[in-house]
Order: sequence, then C-alpha cells, then structure tokens
Amino acid sequence: MDQHFPKGTQPRIVIIGGGFGGIELAKKLRNQAVDVLMVDKHNYHTFQPLLYQVATGGLEADSIAFPLRKIFKGQKNLTFRVTEVKKVLAAQNVIETTIGTIEYDYLVLATGSTSNFFGQTEIEGNAMPMKSIPEALNLRSLILQNLEAAQIAEDAQQRAELLNFVVVGGGPTGVETAGALAELKKHVLKSDYPDLEINDVNIYLVEGSPALLAAMSSQAQQKAADFLHELGVTIMKNTRVLGYDGKVLTLGDEQKIPSSTVIWSAGVKGVVIEGLNTEHVVRGNRLKVNEINLVDGYQNIYAIGDVAAMITEEFPNGHPGVAPAAIQQGKLLAKNLLRIIAKQPTENFKYFDKGAMATVGRNRAVVDLHKIRFQGVFAWFTWMFVHLMTLVGFRNKLVVFVNWVWSYFSYDRGTRLIIRPFHRSKDVKQTAVPNESGTSH
Amino acid sequence: MDQHFPKGTQPRIVIIGGGFGGIELAKKLRNQAVDVLMVDKHNYHTFQPLLYQVATGGLEADSIAFPLRKIFKGQKNLTFRVTEVKKVLAAQNVIETTIGTIEYDYLVLATGSTSNFFGQTEIEGNAMPMKSIPEALNLRSLILQNLEAAQIAEDAQQRAELLNFVVVGGGPTGVETAGALAELKKHVLKSDYPDLEINDVNIYLVEGSPALLAAMSSQAQQKAADFLHELGVTIMKNTRVLGYDGKVLTLGDEQKIPSSTVIWSAGVKGVVIEGLNTEHVVRGNRLKVNEINLVDGYQNIYAIGDVAAMITEEFPNGHPGVAPAAIQQGKLLAKNLLRIIAKQPTENFKYFDKGAMATVGRNRAVVDLHKIRFQGVFAWFTWMFVHLMTLVGFRNKLVVFVNWVWSYFSYDRGTRLIIRPFHRSKDVKQTAVPNESGTSH
Repeated sequence: MDQHFPKGTQPRIVIIGGGFGGIELAKKLRNQAVDVLMVDKHNYHTFQPLLYQVATGGLEADSIAFPLRKIFKGQKNLTFRVTEVKKVLAAQNVIETTIGTIEYDYLVLATGSTSNFFGQTEIEGNAMPMKSIPEALNLRSLILQNLEAAQIAEDAQQRAELLNFVVVGGGPTGVETAGALAELKKHVLKSDYPDLEINDVNIYLVEGSPALLAAMSSQAQQKAADFLHELGVTIMKNTRVLGYDGKVLTLGDEQKIPSSTVIWSAGVKGVVIEGLNTEHVVRGNRLKVNEINLVDGYQNIYAIGDVAAMITEEFPNGHPGVAPAAIQQGKLLAKNLLRIIAKQPTENFKYFDKGAMATVGRNRAVVDLHKIRFQGVFAWFTWMFVHLMTLVGFRNKLVVFVNWVWSYFSYDRGTRLIIRPFHRSKDVKQTAVPNESGTSH
Repeated sequence: MDQHFPKGTQPRIVIIGGGFGGIELAKKLRNQAVDVLMVDKHNYHTFQPLLYQVATGGLEADSIAFPLRKIFKGQKNLTFRVTEVKKVLAAQNVIETTIGTIEYDYLVLATGSTSNFFGQTEIEGNAMPMKSIPEALNLRSLILQNLEAAQIAEDAQQRAELLNFVVVGGGPTGVETAGALAELKKHVLKSDYPDLEINDVNIYLVEGSPALLAAMSSQAQQKAADFLHELGVTIMKNTRVLGYDGKVLTLGDEQKIPSSTVIWSAGVKGVVIEGLNTEHVVRGNRLKVNEINLVDGYQNIYAIGDVAAMITEEFPNGHPGVAPAAIQQGKLLAKNLLRIIAKQPTENFKYFDKGAMATVGRNRAVVDLHKIRFQGVFAWFTWMFVHLMTLVGFRNKLVVFVNWVWSYFSYDRGTRLIIRPFHRSKDVKQTAVPNESGTSH
C-alpha cells in the first residue's frame, strides 16, 4: 500500500477537486478535529465564470487562477497534493491516484463538470471547448492566429472560414462569449488590423432552443438578444448543430457556415471518477445524492457542485451548475460531516437562489434578482462588482480591477498575445485535454 | 512570386524582429515617406529584462509581453505580419518567409539573440533556457512541479535533484534569477509547502570567471555577492560546467550537483538568418556592421541590437547586448535611412552608456551610473522605477506596478501556477524552441 499518506488519528476527509465547492468545504473545516486532504490535477483554482474573458483577450490567465496552496496557507489540518485520481475503490475506502493510493474515512467528489458534446465525436474533435485555462488560452491563440492568417488569405472560402466565429450554446457563457467577440471586433480589429475588411468578420450565436439564457426571465432574454443584435451578433435560435469538420459547420436546416472557430458552450457533464457505481448516474452525468449530498448507495462518499444531482420537486434535474450552489453545498457539508463524526443529527440542504446575471458587453448586462430585474449600464456595473468581489484573493481582484478600469476607458482589450500557437489536432483527446508533452503554459 | 506584398511607390524598409531595436526604428519612421514592413515570429514584443520574474512567479507573462499591432496602432505606413523568415536572398533583394516572399529596398535585421550553449548539446538538451516567454513559463512550471514532486519523493537522491536549483552564469540575468529563487524559498516555500524541509532547498549560482556581474564595478560585484550570500545562495566562481544529463550537473573540478533544474544564463548568440554571407559573422554569432549599422559586404542590409557587432576600439566585441544599445541604434538608423534615401550624408553611431543595474531581491540592488555607484534599498527603488518606466505601454505598467507593490508589502510572489506541465523532451529542439504542435500558452 501507500507510504506517502499515512492516516493520522483524526478522521480523514479527502476532497477531490479545488473548485468553488471543494474550497468552501475545506475552508470550513479549518481548525476542526479532522484531517483534510485535497487533491486536484492543477495546483490552482480556476475562476470559471471569467474564462471567456481570457479566451477573448480581456484578462490575463493568471488573473483568474489562484494557487490552491496559497488559498489554504496556514490551514494546519489540510494537506494539498497535485495528482489525478484514477479510481475509487469504495470497498477498501481508498482512491488510486497518479502519486499513490490514498485512504479516506469520508470522500467528497467536487470534481465539477466538463464540456458535453453529447457523443458527437466529430464536433468534439474540432470545436473549441472553454472549461479550463489551457482551453481558453488555446481559443485565444486560435482567434488571433485566424485574424493574422485572414490578412494574407486570398481564397474567399478560406477567408470566410477564418473570419466567421460561431458560438454554439445560448446560455450565459455563450452569450458572454459572443458579446466579447463582438466588442473585440468593434473596438480592436479596426485599429489592430487596418488591412482587414471589418464587415467580413461575422459572429454567430447558435442555440437549439427557442430562447437565449433559458434559466433567466423573459425580460432578460429579450434584452440580451437586443444587446447582441446591437453589437452585430447574428443570433440563430431553434437551430441544432449536426456536424463540424473543422472547416464547415452544418446546421439542422442543412444550412452551412464556413468557420474554423466554433466555440462549444452548449452543455456540460459531470466528471465522475471511475470505480463508482454508475447505477446512480443521472442526466448530465451527475451523481444522484440525497439531501445531505451523500451519493446514493454509499455510506461515506459525498458529491457537491456540478457533479452532484440532488433531485427535488423544485429541481428535478438537480441544482443549477453554478458557483453559489457548489459553495452552499460545500459549506453545509462541512457542518454535516462534523455532525456525523460527532454522531449528531444532520441538516438538509436548502438552495438559496442568488439570482442570475450575464454580461453582453460594456454597459450591457442583464440581472435577475428574484423579483428585481434590470438591464443595461447599472446591471453591467452590478455584474462587474459581483465578479470582482467573488474573485478569490485580494491581489487578483486588484489586477482584474485595473484591467477592467483600463478597458472601460480605452475601449481596449488587454492581452492579445499568441504565446503558444494552437494547432488543431487530429486526435480528439489532444484537443479536449491539456497536452502533457513537451510544453507548458 | 509573391502576391501578398506588392511594393508601393515609396521605398520599402523591411524590419525582421519586434524587439527593442526594431520597435524604435519602426516608430521613428512614422509619417515618413517610406513603407515599413515588420515581421516577427510572435505577435508580441517580449520585455526580456523581466523574463526571470515570469520564470519565478513574480509577474504574469502577459505583463511583460505587448501586442506589436497595438504598439503600431495608427501608424499608417507600417504593415505587420507574423511569420518566420527562412532565408535572405540578397542578390534579389527579397526574403523568403513562411507566408511568402517579400521584396525589400532596405532590410534591417533586428533578430536579437538566443541562448548560447557553446556547442554542448547534452547541456542544451537538458538545461532550461530563459530567452522567451514560453521558455520562462516552462521554467516556472518545472520549478513548481519539482516542489510538488519533492513532497512525495522518498529517495534522498531524488529529493536532492528536485530541491537543488542551479543557475549557470553570473551576469545580470543569472544574479537576478538566483536572487528571485532565494526570495521564493525564503518567503513563500515555508507557507506554501509546510511539509517541505526548507533547508533541503538549495540555490547555486555557478560562474566560470572570477567575478559576478563582470561588466559592472567591483563595488557592485562585491555587494551583489554579499546580497546573494545573505539570501542563502551558494556562489561558485571560477567554476566551469562540463556536463548535465538532466539529473546531475558535472563541474570543472569534478564536483557533481544533483539537480533537475539547471537554468542556463551563461551566454547568448546572435540570431543570424540563413542566406547571409557568414564571412562577416564574428564572436557571439553577430554580424559585423560599420558605423551606421550596415552589414559588411552589403549595400542595403543593416543589423541592429544584439545581432550586430559594431567593432570599435572601445568595443572590440561590439556593444553590450542590452536594450539601450539596440534602442539607440534603431533610433539613429531611422534617421540615417531617411538621409540615405534623400542622398544626404549619414551620421555615425555613438553609444551613450546609461550605466548598468541588477536587482538581487527586495531592497537589494546594485546600480552603476558612470561615476555614481550605489547599492541597497535606494538602488532597488531605482531599478524598479527604471523598469516600470521602460515597460512599453501604460496598461502593462500599471498591472506590473500593482503586482510589485503587492509583493513588496506581502512578501508574496503572485503567480505560482502550473498552467501547462513541463516535461523534459529527449529532443533538443523541443526544449530550445516553443513547441509548435497541439498546444498553446
């Protein structure tokens, strides 16, 4: 067995994943009579709501990533390790990882979600996902490379491929990405690429259902569509994506859009670790959990956040895959685990819906706070404020704040750098996961 | 021939390289009756003096890189293209590039320099260079990965390899890198890696000659050594490096240091484009130029900055490979090219030595300004101020300033992220140049 992780005398809680839920849970266990071991494949937390800003050159990657060791600095009962978890051996209460086998008393899966291509491997191999920092940086490189290449492309078809940018999925991420691309076109392309015919650059937002921002009010939906329209985005609702070969996107009505940049924000699926009983994996590849986030069929394995589906009357598919849900579940689970260890009664989870918001661009955002709904400039400042305040760690906040203030007054997006060129790989895996050979960020 | 770059009626000046010299030259040609075409393999300028800050997690990569298109925004007589130059065909007055053939009337090589391993291929394949942003990010990843790995390494030899960091070369870059690593050890490791025995972490600075900072005053040399000593760096002068296999560094006195992180700052060589007459390539792989930076043997090919060797009595090996020399040459060449076109007499180059400085760490720097020499806190603030002011573009300055102020008061280095893991490649080329397949920044 494993030599590296001898268990102490206190109960050991192993947390897989340093996302919003995992961090909250670990922090709330500070100074408690438990040993916390967190593992993550990265040494940093990714502030996912702002990934689209990195992909479109608005923020540095480092501004939305935060070293996990720094977050837990001084937390004596916590050990952090960078590793990938290969398997859960529930019968033995251990997980197998790339750095050895780790025993647990309580296991918490806070593994989050990844892009869901719904089994369409051709699309998966060619469209650009945007769920991690390497993926966002790949996208940034591709967008900028295409603009460079378009300047010297003479073939009309090739130019169209290079200058048509298609966002698939009209949820908050899709809306925000399409808006950010439109702003890039409006404020930066003209000055940075004087040789490009600006009208040749087209941004499409493709959504399968009849509405954008399905989870928000009809007011917000309408206004978001108006904002996108103002910015010149072509919105295609009720439109399914049938295929994408890296050059041409084929839509449900047989329409074809030439494009070498198709951004996939059409769905996510939970990241379930091998070894768990898949009987209780429900829609969206989430683990079915009870009211205290215990995974169905297990006694000491919990799931929180995007990977957990706590099915209730109000939430027949589980709670929305947003940061507040993960944070609230992590917070309560910390309390409940301590209660369980102390053999006290637990408290059931109750989701507090903080509302939803999406930004389409400068001065253009939509906010739903229960009964209160507003759109436009004030909504945009609200969005900025909330995201700034939520960003983990003071330093990052300040750098992001400086970037945003600068962008606001200069109409400029900061970091249009092709640090590492992106080359579309033939291998689906290569595109979908960070490359592991020869290079780094 | 080439269709993409039809020459206009004005004389065309082609500049290869967007470093300090190339940028200065291009800017000074603004609003003149010439067409300027700049090519660079990256779409950004790299502020090389601060690369070591990126490598040691002090600054974001994006803070020291600046989009070239943004620098030349609104300069109507300038065209910029991202491409790699393959060959100069001097007889035809064209260069061959990856995006086609480009005609020139005047060609300026501002290609800069790259790491010089002096033909030692084993070292080249295993040591970490730090002359570009991808290289600096690779090094950052490797340092952090080694610290992670050391936490679980049980073999003493392996632990020593992971925790010994060796900087080869005692010039400003080597001194600054060793100092930054020592500060990382002192202020960050203890809190971030509570399981690591801090005394197991060793930083070595290996220099072949009898002194560090050979180009500076003996006062500066002594004080820099004192500062490094205070910070716990082991300085090995008069020590040659014989070999490095990726695990053990072999020194001239047969001493061996186990280390998986050997940082190479022992020398640079000019980047000379293929096709040029190599007869006039002198020491350091530089092109011999006359007093107006005209390359020996040519009528309309110039070289400025690191790749140029203007040999004078005072500078028998050409001017130092520093930003001010490149900037001054670029500035004068702009004037001289316009004079040549107008058939007016040219002016010979005269180097204005601005002095030299190096920072060893917080409050510890050495400055030589001709007769004025000072060291310590004030020198450190001088260093900060000069670098901040020199950084291209307001936005970057502000972000860097925020980072530095924050670091100053918190004793914290900001961005300890392993965005893309680094894996040492068997292939020398892979390590030496940015990887071109499958991934991006």
